[in-house]
Order: sequence, then structure tokens, then C-alpha cells
Amino acid sequence: PDPAPRSGDDPGEDRGWEPLLDRLGAVRARTRELCAPLSAEDAAIQSMTEASPAKWHLAHTTWFFETFVLAPNDPEHRPFDPHFEHLFNSYYHTVGSMFPRPRRGLLSRPSLERVLAYREHVDRALARLLADRPMDARLAHVLEVGLHHEQQHQELILTDVLHLFSCNPTAPAYRGEGGPPVEQGAPAPLAWHAHPGGLVEIGHPGPGFAYDNEGPRHRVYLAPFALASRPVTCGEYLEFMADGGYERFELWLAEGWDRVRAEGWRAPLHWRRRGRDFVQFTLDGELPVEPAAPVCHLSYHEAHAFAAWAGARLPSEAEWEVFAAQQPVAGNLAGSGALRPRPAPAPDAGASAPAQMFGDVWEWTASPYTPYPGYAAEDGALGEYNGKFMCNQMVLRGGSCATPEGHVRATYRNFFHPHERWQFAGLRLARWT
Amino acid sequence: PDPAPRSGDDPGEDRGWEPLLDRLGAVRARTRELCAPLSAEDAAIQSMTEASPAKWHLAHTTWFFETFVLAPNDPEHRPFDPHFEHLFNSYYHTVGSMFPRPRRGLLSRPSLERVLAYREHVDRALARLLADRPMDARLAHVLEVGLHHEQQHQELILTDVLHLFSCNPTAPAYRGEGGPPVEQGAPAPLAWHAHPGGLVEIGHPGPGFAYDNEGPRHRVYLAPFALASRPVTCGEYLEFMADGGYERFELWLAEGWDRVRAEGWRAPLHWRRRGRDFVQFTLDGELPVEPAAPVCHLSYHEAHAFAAWAGARLPSEAEWEVFAAQQPVAGNLAGSGALRPRPAPAPDAGASAPAQMFGDVWEWTASPYTPYPGYAAEDGALGEYNGKFMCNQMVLRGGSCATPEGHVRATYRNFFHPHERWQFAGLRLARWT
Amino acid sequence: PDPAPRSGDDPGEDRGWEPLLDRLGAVRARTRELCAPLSAEDAAIQSMTEASPAKWHLAHTTWFFETFVLAPNDPEHRPFDPHFEHLFNSYYHTVGSMFPRPRRGLLSRPSLERVLAYREHVDRALARLLADRPMDARLAHVLEVGLHHEQQHQELILTDVLHLFSCNPTAPAYRGEGGPPVEQGAPAPLAWHAHPGGLVEIGHPGPGFAYDNEGPRHRVYLAPFALASRPVTCGEYLEFMADGGYERFELWLAEGWDRVRAEGWRAPLHWRRRGRDFVQFTLDGELPVEPAAPVCHLSYHEAHAFAAWAGARLPSEAEWEVFAAQQPVAGNLAGSGALRPRPAPAPDAGASAPAQMFGDVWEWTASPYTPYPGYAAEDGALGEYNGKFMCNQMVLRGGSCATPEGHVRATYRNFFHPHERWQFAGLRLARWT
Amino acid sequence: PDPAPRSGDDPGEDRGWEPLLDRLGAVRARTRELCAPLSAEDAAIQSMTEASPAKWHLAHTTWFFETFVLAPNDPEHRPFDPHFEHLFNSYYHTVGSMFPRPRRGLLSRPSLERVLAYREHVDRALARLLADRPMDARLAHVLEVGLHHEQQHQELILTDVLHLFSCNPTAPAYRGEGGPPVEQGAPAPLAWHAHPGGLVEIGHPGPGFAYDNEGPRHRVYLAPFALASRPVTCGEYLEFMADGGYERFELWLAEGWDRVRAEGWRAPLHWRRRGRDFVQFTLDGELPVEPAAPVCHLSYHEAHAFAAWAGARLPSEAEWEVFAAQQPVAGNLAGSGALRPRPAPAPDAGASAPAQMFGDVWEWTASPYTPYPGYAAEDGALGEYNGKFMCNQMVLRGGSCATPEGHVRATYRNFFHPHERWQFAGLRLARWT
Repeated sequence: PDPAPRSGDDPGEDRGWEPLLDRLGAVRARTRELCAPLSAEDAAIQSMTEASPAKWHLAHTTWFFETFVLAPNDPEHRPFDPHFEHLFNSYYHTVGSMFPRPRRGLLSRPSLERVLAYREHVDRALARLLADRPMDARLAHVLEVGLHHEQQHQELILTDVLHLFSCNPTAPAYRGEGGPPVEQGAPAPLAWHAHPGGLVEIGHPGPGFAYDNEGPRHRVYLAPFALASRPVTCGEYLEFMADGGYERFELWLAEGWDRVRAEGWRAPLHWRRRGRDFVQFTLDGELPVEPAAPVCHLSYHEAHAFAAWAGARLPSEAEWEVFAAQQPVAGNLAGSGALRPRPAPAPDAGASAPAQMFGDVWEWTASPYTPYPGYAAEDGALGEYNGKFMCNQMVLRGGSCATPEGHVRATYRNFFHPHERWQFAGLRLARWT
Repeated sequence: PDPAPRSGDDPGEDRGWEPLLDRLGAVRARTRELCAPLSAEDAAIQSMTEASPAKWHLAHTTWFFETFVLAPNDPEHRPFDPHFEHLFNSYYHTVGSMFPRPRRGLLSRPSLERVLAYREHVDRALARLLADRPMDARLAHVLEVGLHHEQQHQELILTDVLHLFSCNPTAPAYRGEGGPPVEQGAPAPLAWHAHPGGLVEIGHPGPGFAYDNEGPRHRVYLAPFALASRPVTCGEYLEFMADGGYERFELWLAEGWDRVRAEGWRAPLHWRRRGRDFVQFTLDGELPVEPAAPVCHLSYHEAHAFAAWAGARLPSEAEWEVFAAQQPVAGNLAGSGALRPRPAPAPDAGASAPAQMFGDVWEWTASPYTPYPGYAAEDGALGEYNGKFMCNQMVLRGGSCATPEGHVRATYRNFFHPHERWQFAGLRLARWT
Repeated sequence: PDPAPRSGDDPGEDRGWEPLLDRLGAVRARTRELCAPLSAEDAAIQSMTEASPAKWHLAHTTWFFETFVLAPNDPEHRPFDPHFEHLFNSYYHTVGSMFPRPRRGLLSRPSLERVLAYREHVDRALARLLADRPMDARLAHVLEVGLHHEQQHQELILTDVLHLFSCNPTAPAYRGEGGPPVEQGAPAPLAWHAHPGGLVEIGHPGPGFAYDNEGPRHRVYLAPFALASRPVTCGEYLEFMADGGYERFELWLAEGWDRVRAEGWRAPLHWRRRGRDFVQFTLDGELPVEPAAPVCHLSYHEAHAFAAWAGARLPSEAEWEVFAAQQPVAGNLAGSGALRPRPAPAPDAGASAPAQMFGDVWEWTASPYTPYPGYAAEDGALGEYNGKFMCNQMVLRGGSCATPEGHVRATYRNFFHPHERWQFAGLRLARWT
Repeated sequence: PDPAPRSGDDPGEDRGWEPLLDRLGAVRARTRELCAPLSAEDAAIQSMTEASPAKWHLAHTTWFFETFVLAPNDPEHRPFDPHFEHLFNSYYHTVGSMFPRPRRGLLSRPSLERVLAYREHVDRALARLLADRPMDARLAHVLEVGLHHEQQHQELILTDVLHLFSCNPTAPAYRGEGGPPVEQGAPAPLAWHAHPGGLVEIGHPGPGFAYDNEGPRHRVYLAPFALASRPVTCGEYLEFMADGGYERFELWLAEGWDRVRAEGWRAPLHWRRRGRDFVQFTLDGELPVEPAAPVCHLSYHEAHAFAAWAGARLPSEAEWEVFAAQQPVAGNLAGSGALRPRPAPAPDAGASAPAQMFGDVWEWTASPYTPYPGYAAEDGALGEYNGKFMCNQMVLRGGSCATPEGHVRATYRNFFHPHERWQFAGLRLARWT
């Protein structure tokens, strides 16, 4: 069970900082573990502008704590390295200048080793800072943000390493051991879960941690609709492809169709044709496509085109949330160790709720990423976290097989541009009723 | 008074095709009039990819009637010129291949003269086709779409010519006579019109013509809010500029800030510094900036930044519509002859409604352009008109000083990309209450 | 016979300015004639950055006389239009700022009509200026440069109009009357003209007009070689194509091969496949390819690849010149009215000299465009004419079917970048002996 | 003393392959030594398209021997890794497909460690292959080419690492120990060495190794000229800068001036302003500019502009070679350990020859890189080494402080594009007499 929602607002209780520090320690350790299979070279290279080197993720998440926790609260704080403030700032103009994102892959120095030392240094300084300090809700909040921020970067480490390795003709595997065996069975039949519509409430209700973009909780009016019982599968997507999905302009948004032609899209990202079949490049190297597993590494445009082909549509984020809010946050998240989407479990007879709402694949919604009514960004630099990106991006919901346990919620709003494909993103259908 | 809303669904009544043909004749004549001040050279050149030559607008609007009215309904129809089907198709994949948009300015042939002959030829063929034909609702609808389509291109002729002339160091004026005198007075004070929120209905209620994207009419839940009594003025925008509006990243969306720096934005498009002051390049050449007139030629990003600076926000399209639906469609539209935004009329004491909702400037809203619940595109090629553009664009409302009378409605949804500035677009503030 | 070489240095003799003014009048009139078949739209559009609108050529050649003759010599001179100094400066930094070349096609104003009035105005002012003025060698030189400058632009008007029309799917013809009939006969057999090598002299010997880049005359040592009796023909080039010329990397320079792939070259520019055959787009519209005519619209890269395929090479400019200097300047130049390359005339038995050295096609040489030993650019703005372009360009020799009579000489050095194809450029083979 | 010229043609003599293998072993060991100060990350990253990762250089030079020596000569040869043929082919179309150059920095795998193992494997296989094999002139030639090829890449390792580190705000130093102390003295006064001109011979005379592009030896006619006694110094270049060198269009070739403006050139590459002074970024980090040392990291355009400013010019490659051929190949080459240009040694009174002809900086010449008369590329894949690059590049002569001993000769022709600046390139003046 994820302690976040309860401990978020009141991380100390009787035990002071300890519970928060415990969680923080676990998250920080997990980041290092994720990078353990990577060589210094794997961790240094940037495979495209949108991705960052793993070493940069390791440093930037540490910079977050140094900049927002240590520097303003520890009068004795001295920067570990004065260059790092500039090198590892991602996009916080409030804090100062930042090294340009497309050049992150040029930094052979500091070495991976030195970045790991930076992490240790900051972790120790955090522990020291909090040792004698009385509980402080504002500081606890910043630490909580830093913890969730780091979890986000854990997922990005996986997506970015997958992209890097996908550029390598030798098709390297991220880890030695491999994931669960490939399953070639047919998917569970699709069912629809109806909702009567009407006035609903979405957004984070508190207490517990949530990003500013998840609130305020507010009313939305929904028309009656139905939501699919599971995400679209690879098998279904292969039918779309076989039916000319990538050749039929009428299925696509205009900007999507331009991408199809300009970039030669013919299948999801990381799929490769082998004779008549497709394999998928995964964190375990090339594997056969699994018909019953959710299709993954789609752009919004592909999700939209599939839905049009299927005579359905994508759900709005409100439609998705009213179903998700009824469920525990459980599924094929990163902790399962699969690191790829898995076939839906056999449904209970008459299952009363959609399956695989959490984990497996982020689900593209039909909702542009915009502020909720009454939204106000946080004060200070943390206010740059979410609000300034509310343009030309679409909301995704539910987390993926690369999302850490404890990170995602029913109200969690992820967002990417409609053409981006390197995330673990798929779709679930909806329709009017 | 605009006959469109009433005659749209039933354009014939007792008089058969006559009323529709009369309106069509007037619209077609108006397009020619708009091009009368242009030389053949003015009409041929494309000043940027997003703009089209006036000659192309003249031909494309004619192609619309030839392709969607004459070709499918007149068994004797022969194309005026077989090349034109390809040359003057804008984006209708259903119809066939299209000459690439960025190359429209390469067509010195057909000449302007020949394009005008094409217009006459098609106008005569339309009249012949309908002469003996019984009323037919489907055909009437297509004609109605063609009429409104042509009105849209009338506005584009003006925006595109303004852009073309703005590229010319000789600062040509579009017309000889000039518009209304420049006014240097102060703007009307800003007031707020409150709305209690709750469940409202928006979207076109019928009868009368509307584009498919204006429906279905549907319920939306609104939080209580207030809408400004008039658009933001040039005088207010000058204050924003003087207060460092273009230098303060915290006011901007991230993509907007990138544009500011990459393109060196320092003022609205078409504003030029002259010593300490600014002049605006208009269809009447360079004129002083008018403090009380609505600020114009803004991108969505600039509108957003101004609103942030002003401690307010942009209204959603629903918020805008609930006020606009209470008003007659009247204002500084193209028929007024000003061809630039004008200062608000002196308000009635205790005016009960926001002013300048229609005309002057298109008002950027906070709403991404997405389908309404239950939206279905029209069948056939006309289904390509709206739906496929519902991605990465923002809705604008209310029409501008370049919008033809009879074209805009309270439910009308215009849309452009957030960075586009060459339309007559400004903003009106809103805030939560 | 071309009067230029003799009258250049001493244009007045007994008759004062008259002979020079006569020649100038003829050249100026010819420029207008070349533009007579063009509509205002044809004359206004720029089809690519390297090309300029015909209207711009008309104005720029006039600007040359206004700027370099009238302004410095006529104390009463007032600019025809103060904007023109900026608008129609091509690249003379010495003179002041210039309107950017890629934007020349945005100038719908001044109109073609006004540019023609500008021409008349300047022509009259020139006549007035010289009426009472004693002969003056420096001024005569500037006029002579202006005359040859205008002839260069006459050729560019034709190449640029051909390019513009080639972008138009309606394949317009430049003139109504058409050129000589298409010839389908086989080419004259190729012969080789040997040269023993040794120390030779090249460069303009004076007297008579030449550009600064044609001097100083200087010695060059040549190894023994042979020059082909005529340019490479379309028939020969079709064999190269049929033999995989565009698919065999080993024939190409590395930068040429990159162009082949990036731009999809499969045939000379302006050739179009029609079933199994090719047609060529010419100033008379689409015509069949003529096997015996010199192949045209090649880049240097294509010329180089053909020569490699043929087991030969391109001549150096010195090798070309030592043969050309023995011949009268005569051939299929623009005055012949063909406006496309023609088959070689039947050779005299035992012809002692290579044919078609002048006219038909500019011949790419193996010589990069560099200064001759002792070269010094002219003083003042005219010094920008040639020297600053001596980088990354290759020399072409001999003039083309679009070059005005009286313009080209044995020592004349034309130059373009290796990838440029829109000139009337072909090749002649050479080999070591 | 460099054994190459003598042993090249006859590498075996009595001792069979041994002398060649000894030299090869030394060169191969030197490449590894050059990479010893680099971390795996330093060796993996590509800082721009023109540069390659050090790891790639290590592998590609090994691929050369595997592909051109082992594969065709050893019937038992099995590829070390089948991927490497594709991954580490630079540009040899004859051999097969190649991994795209701009993506060389994406290869985190194979690791540096594995590439070093590849080197050992191939070195051992080479020794085995030659152990019992009789001397064979063709094979010896290929090995000799491979040896010189590897030396070229040794220089590129240094230039590319310097560029990579120059992108890093932490300004890393390549090595710990540092080079010679900084000298702030004034340069030796400039003298001129006259040459009477006339017919001279240039090109490699044999015997001994040379690349195909250094021959055939041939006659060239020179006008009388003089060559400067040493390269242009940093102190002189600072005068050029102070005199507005980067702001005066009249000094620049047109394409150079475009670069100055587009890329904001204000000083040589790797120079950085510190207050009123400049520092240079070197392989030992940031150092003060040394006035007496040859200026370095110039483009051809900068060299040309400096020469124009100085009232002189660049020498042709023939002019350079006739002086260089009189001298021993000695100077500040890589073996000196300075790894940056050094001030000229105090000249002998009445020194009879120009100083610093070899080493310190490659000297841009006025000669485009073209084939010598009678040039024929080698047969087979090695024929792709030089000839296909003879377009749009300029010849540089004399080697630099990064060129290995034994690599450069008086006839050696290096070549780069006129805008490239990341090599150790400077200039020496010449003038007509």
C-alpha cells in the first residue's frame, strides 16, 4: 500500500521527519538501482532532444534537493560544485540560467562516479539538516515534491534508456535477467462499462500529496458514456495496421497525417518488421509482439486514428477519472519488474470495473492539458513545475509499467505533445451512449 | 440584418432558390470588390506559408462550388480547366491530390484575369444549374457552406494582403480612401460583468446555418466568474510592454517564452517603433497606435502573458458564449469600412452587457479547439472542413473588423495555433469570482 | 560581329559618347524585349532563393546606372524613388544596406509598370548627363561595366523565368511563337583535338572590355591533353542514365552523391519522365529530348560523374581557353532565337577546331573559381563584382543559348556552385594524352 | 627521424615484415596512449557532426585493418563482431553500408573496454597473418596506408576531444600534467623569403609512402613571389581584431561574411573574452593567449580576411611546397608534447629559410583541393580515400602541434571546408614580388 496519500500532508506525526526521510531514502536508492545496469557511457549519451542522459537525471534530481531544500534552509550550505547549479537546472528560470537541454549529452564531465558522489553528499546533508529541526509543513511539502519529482525522473530514465538503446544496431538489453515470458494468447474480449453522466467532481480531494495541476477539485458535467474494459491490445492494433490504418488520411488529425508522411510512421515506435511479423524493442531487447498486451509507444495521433478506425473515441480525462477513482491504485507498475505492458488478467465474470486502469500503459485522453477552474500555480520556483506547460499538450492518465509504485493516483495528470511516442503510452476506448 | 440564421435551413421557402442565390451573388460580388484595389502582382504573391495569394483565394472559393456543387450535380459539367482541380484544392484529400500550400505563390499562371473569368464561368453555371431544379435541402446546405466558406476567405484576403504589404519597405496602403480618423483619446474604464456559474448550455441551437463544429448543443458546468466589459486596449498593452512584459519569463507559457526569444517579439505584430512611440501598420498604411482601440495582432501566447500580468485570465469559450448569446450580432465588422479595431463606444451608464463582443478583434479564449460531446463530422469531403484540425489550436470568438457581416455568430468557433499573430486577434479578460 | 572588344577601351573616338550610348540603348531595349512576353505576375514572383523576379532584374540593372553613373556624376541628380537604393541593391555593401535576396519575391510594389517608368527615367537622365560632357575614360568604363552587367542579367531573366514556369503544373511557355523544330537525329561522332601542352598564356590580353577576374594575363604550364570536338549530347547522357549513372556512387564526388540522394536526382533538371521517354521543359514548354543536342541543366556534380563514367575528365579553364582563343566568338547564342541548345552542325571533314565552343551550353570546367596570379579587384564598389565570390564555385566557359551576343569572350569566366542546375550548363570532355 | 619515406616502398628488406610491424605496433600503441586520459564517457560522446567520439576513432582505425588486411587475406578470418563492419565503416561505399556519421555519438555499446579488446584482437591477428607470409608489396602498401590512416585519426582524436571539452562549462583539461609554460613575449619580426618563380615541380617524387593525392609529380609555372618567414601570430591577429577585422565586410569573401554574421564570429574558435583580454581553451584547459605563438583554430575565411587586411595573400600550395621541400620535416609536432602552437624560435641572423613550416599549425593555402594533372585514384575501396572529396575544400599544408611525427611531408595535402575551424589551422602570408 502506498503511504503517500496519507502521510503527504502530515509526514511527521509523532516520529518527526523519520517517515518522510525513510520514504525519501527508499526513492533515492531506487533511482540508483535503476542506473546500476548502465555503463558510464550508457548514462552519458543523449539520444534526442526530448530525452536526457541517465547521468543528467541522477544529477538533476539531486540538484532539486540542493536548490530547493539545502540552499534556502541550511545557512552553512556550500554548493557541492558551483557549476552544478547551472548544469543541472532543467527549466527553472526563477533559479537562474540553465544549460541548454539539447546539449545535455555533451557533458562527459562530471563523470557518473562524481554524480553519484554528489548524490551521497546531498543525501547526507539532507539528513543532517533535518536531524535537529522541528517539523515544518512547508519544508515537508518541498521534500515531498522532490520525492515525487524524482519518481517522475525514474520513469524517464527507463524511457530514455530504451530510446538510446533503440538507436543502437546491436539492440542492447537494459538488464541481464529478462522479464516475464512472452505470451502469445488472445486478448480478453472487450466489454464496455457505462456511466450515466451528469455532474461529477474531479481533481484531488486532499489530504495527501498531489501536484498543483490536480486541483482544485471541481464539478464537470458529463454526457452519458461508456469506457472500455481494458486498453487496446497489440492484436487489435495489428488489425488496424492490416486494414491500412497508416495509409488512410480520413482516420487522422491533419497534423497527425503530416507526421505519418514526414516521418514514415508505419507501426508503433520500437516495433520492427521481421519478415511478415513484428518484433518490439524492449528493455529486454527484441521480443515478439504479444497480441493480448496493451499496445504501447503510440503518439496521441496514432491513438486518435485507432479510435476513429474502431468507431469509438478517446475518453476525456474526467470520464477516465470517475472510473479510476473507484479503484485501488494497483497494476503492472514498475515494481512488478515486467518493464513492459502485460496482457490483462482473466476478467472476473461480470467484472464491475474496467481493468488495467493503473499501470501497463499511460492512456492518452481526449483532453488538452489545461488548468482546472480556479487553478493557481504554486508560489516561487515550484510554480514553474506544471502551469507553464499548459499548451499544445494532451493529458495521459493511469501510469505505466515504468511508473514507480506510489507515484500515480486517480487524479494524476501526465502530459506530452501529441506527436511524442517514446513514452509507455497507449489508449483505452470510450464512446457515447 | 443578416438573413443567414433564419434562411439557412430553409433557404427557398416560396421563392425557391432565389433568396439563396441572391445572398450567394452578394457574397461572390463582395469577394471581387475586396480584390479590386489589388494589382495582379499584389494578388499573386505568397508572403509566408500560412498565408495565400489573393488570387488563390479567388480561385479556391470558386473551386469549392465547382467541385462540391457543379461536378456532382450537373451531368453536363466540364471542368473550366482540368488543372484547377489540383491547383486550387486546399486540403480535401477526399477530392484528390492538392498543390502544396507553401508553393501557392509560385503560380503566376493562371493570371488574375483568367481566375476572374473562372469565377464568372462558375457563377453562371451555378445559376443555370439551379434554374429549373426543385428545391433540395442537401444541395442548399452545400451552397450555404460554400457561401460561409467564401466569407471566411474574404477575411483571409484582408489578413494575407496586410501581411504581404507589411513585408514591403515601401509600406503600401491597401486602398486609396483611408479609414476613419485616428483617435488618441483614453479608453473607457474597465468594468466586470459577473456570472453566477452553474449548468449552462452552449453550441448552436438551430435552426439556421452553423458549421458542424458548433454542435451539438450541450451542457457545461461553469464556476462563478466575471467577464471584462471590453477587450484589452492598445493603451493597456503599452503599459504591459513598459512594465517589461516581453522580458519576464514568469508571465509566459514555456512555448510562448521560447517564441519571444527565438523570434525577437517585442510588440504586437505590425507594430513598429518610431523613436519613443509605436505606429501600427494597417490596411491604410502606417498609423499611430490608438490607445483606446482593442490591441490586435497578438498570438495566444501574448494574450496569455498579458492576462497573467493583469492578474486575470482568458475566458473559456463557454464563458464567452453565455454572454454573447444574449446580444445581437453587431459591431465593428468589415462592413463598417474601418478595417481596423476601433475604440469602444462610450458605455451606457450601468451597461448591462459587455461591449464589443462582436467585431473589432477575434478574442483568444482559454479553450483548446476540441470536439463538443457527441460531435460527428459531416459525411464526405465536407467532413474535412473542421474536425481534422482539432489539435494544437485555440478557439477564438466574436469576429473582427475584417469579418464579413452575416458570417459570425455567438456560437462561432474560429481557431488558430497559439503562436500565430497575423489574424486580427486580441483578447478580453475574465476572472474567477 | 561584336563591337565590344574594340570599342571598349575607347568608346568615343571622334563621335564622343555616341557609339557607347548606341550600344547601351540597344542593350537596354533588349532587356525590355525579353520581358515583353511576361505578365506582371510572371515578373513579380521568385521561385527560389537563387533566382530573382524579372521585375527585380529590370530594376536592379537600372539601379546600377543610377547608383554608379548618375548619383556620383550628376550634381542635380535626385533619386527616382528613395526606396529603390535599398530595394534594388544586390550585394554592394559599399553602397549601403540591401533588401534580403530571399525576399525579393515579396515586392508586389513597385509595380512592373513603375519599374519600366524607372528604366525610362534613368535612360533619359543618362542621355542628358552625357550630352554635353567631354569624353571621360573612367565614366566610360563604368558605363561599359553597366552594359555587360545588364547582359548578364538578361541571361538570368531567361534562366529564372524558365525555373519559375517549371514550378507550374500547367507548364507555361515563355513565348508564343516557339523555337526551331525538334530534331531527333543522331549526334555527330565525337573526335578529339590534341594539344601538346607546355607553357601557354591565358587571361584577357586587352584592349577591349573584360571583367577584372579575366586578368592579369599570365602563364600556365599544361601537360599534353586533348579536348572533345563538341559538348556531351543528350543521347550520350541518356546512355549514362541507362547505365545506372545516378545509382553508382563510385562515379560521384562525395558531396555530389549526397545531393543525388537528398534531392532525388535522376535526370538533368527540367527533364520529366513520360512513360519510357523523357521530355525537357524549355522556354517553349515541354519538348521531346533531342539526342544530338548538348545536354543541359546539369550541376558540376553531374558533369563530373558523366566524365568519370566516360573514362574522361572535365577540361581545366586554361585547356578550354587555349582552344577557344583561336576561334571567332560565334554560335548558338541568344540572338539565334532558339533559346535551347541545338545539335552540332555537321562537321567539316577534318575540322581543325572543336565545335560549339561558344553558345549552346556553358561548359563546366574542372577549375575552381580563384583569382589569377596578380589579380586585384577594382577599386570602390565595382570591386565587389567578382573577387568576393572566389570560394566554393566552379568556372564555366563559353556562353549558352541564353547569353546575349557581344557578352561572352574566350577569356570570360562564369561561375556557379557545384550543385546548381538551373543555368544552361553542360559539359565537354577532355583527357590526358 | 621518420623511417617512412625510405622503408615505405620496400618495407621488408632482409628482415621481412618486421620493420613494418614494428612501426605499426608503435603507431597502434600511440593511439591507445592518446586515449588513456579519457574516461569512457569522454570517449563516447560526439560534440558535433564533423567530429567523432574517440571510441569511434579507436574502432574505425581497427576496422580498417580488419576490413582491408585480415578479411581479404586470411581465409580463416572471422569477424570479431559482425556488427562492426557496419558500425565502424566511415565512408567506404565499396565495402557496404555504413552507420550514419551524425549518429556515431549514440553508440554507448560497444563499450570502450570492448573496443580496446577489438584492437588487441586485430593486432594479434595481424601478427599471426604476417608471421609465415612472404613479403608482398601490395599487402605492405595496404598496411602502410592503414598506418598513416591511423596517424590521421590520432590528430582527429585530439581535435575532437578539444571540441568536446570546449562545449563543457567546466572547461576540463585533457591531461593532468600540462604543457610548456605560457610565454608572453613579442613575436619574432616578420621577414620575407623571395622566390624567382618560373617552372617548378611539385608532388611526391617517390620512393617512400605518399597518398595518391600527392601525385603525380608535375610542373607548375609560378610568378615571382615571397613567403613569410613564419606563421601569423596571435599578437598580429589581435591587431586585426582591434582594427575591426570582424566588422569590415570588404576584407571577407562573401560566404565568409555570411558566416561571420550567422555564427557571430568575433575571434578564433576556442578564444574566450575575459574582461579586456582573451584566453584560449586548449587541451590543458584555459590559458592566456600567447602573442608570439601562431594563431590557431581559424577558418579559411578568417585566414583570407586577415591576409587581405595585412595587404598580402595566402600562398598557393605550390608556393608553399617549393620552400618546404628544401627543409627537413621537423618542428612542433605532437611528439613535442606541447599540444599547442609555440612561439617561433629566435631566428638565426639571416636565416635562409622560412621557419615553422612543419608543425604548430596547419597553414591554409589559397589552393582549392583538386586533382593534380594525371591523377588517378587507387583501385578498389582505397580509391575512396581522397579523390571523392575534391570539391569545395581548401588545401592546408605542414602539419600541426597535433600531427604525429612521421606523418607529414612537404608534399602532404590536408584539406577542409573553408568554414571549418576546429582543426589546428592558421596561416602564413605570401605576396607577389
